[in-house]
Amino acid sequence: MSNPHYEKKITNVPDFPKPGIQFKDITTLFEDPKALNEAIYDLQDHIKELMPFDKIVAADARGFLFGVPMALEFKCPLILARKKGKLPRPGASVSYDLEYGTATIEISEDSIKPGDRIVIVDDLLATGGSAKAIAKVVKDLGGTTVGMATLIELDPLKGRENLEGIKVVSCIHYQDA
Amino acid sequence: MSNPHYEKKITNVPDFPKPGIQFKDITTLFEDPKALNEAIYDLQDHIKELMPFDKIVAADARGFLFGVPMALEFKCPLILARKKGKLPRPGASVSYDLEYGTATIEISEDSIKPGDRIVIVDDLLATGGSAKAIAKVVKDLGGTTVGMATLIELDPLKGRENLEGIKVVSCIHYQDA
Repeated sequence: MSNPHYEKKITNVPDFPKPGIQFKDITTLFEDPKALNEAIYDLQDHIKELMPFDKIVAADARGFLFGVPMALEFKCPLILARKKGKLPRPGASVSYDLEYGTATIEISEDSIKPGDRIVIVDDLLATGGSAKAIAKVVKDLGGTTVGMATLIELDPLKGRENLEGIKVVSCIHYQDA
Repeated sequence: MSNPHYEKKITNVPDFPKPGIQFKDITTLFEDPKALNEAIYDLQDHIKELMPFDKIVAADARGFLFGVPMALEFKCPLILARKKGKLPRPGASVSYDLEYGTATIEISEDSIKPGDRIVIVDDLLATGGSAKAIAKVVKDLGGTTVGMATLIELDPLKGRENLEGIKVVSCIHYQDA
């Protein structure tokens, strides 16, 4: 299946942030209103496959870009997963390895109630490290991550294999990564 | 003028990130779909006062939360101003003092064309340091910042006085900060 038309507004940047990585720069997509609108509709269409769910979790920072229009469309709570030190109230956190480097993600402990069915929304699925960390925090707070919706999936990095029990939907698939 | 009804979904957290600061936690607003919808409509209503403009700039990370629904509503380009080291292509950057700490903000150099009329969208206006830095980057790239739209303004910090030539609109005013 070929990628959607708006995909050509995403800029491939070779060797960033380190040699060999083909970075997918979505800033150029956000600068094209028509293409952005198509991308948002496409992701809203894909996320329907993950119903029913109770809440969306979006991760600091690029996840916020897609999490907000999803939450507004589906009229569901949007939980902001933040980088360490940004949340002012007690939270649960997990550190994880990125494709390059490490990070810590945190969610306020009152954001998730036991039994909540959670969908993670993000811009890109690479190795699945950040999504797995979010799912761990969700579980620690009593919720269950039932799905992940992402605009871009880097197929060769096999992130979805790293997310057992989580159904993944994505709009754009890349074979280079 | 009193604050809008949805304001009660924003949580005041005293003494974060340091003693004496009354932190406004918007995560609880995003977890209430009805209140979030009202807030987004209210900001869309306020930003109309800044017309005409060509592009919106939103800053990493919380600015993204409001920049996206504004850009989608007004069908205008959204420029992502990012923290240092996140943009893969050449950009212009400015370092600035925060209310607490320092930061560097960067915009890709091809995101702004000479003559572009820019509106900054953010969650909160405190001292105006970050908005002033964004306006400096916009100017370095040939654009003009004509306005700023923010959900929250901390009136005692007098941020708008720090933003000469930029018209500021905000939905919620706090007198404690």
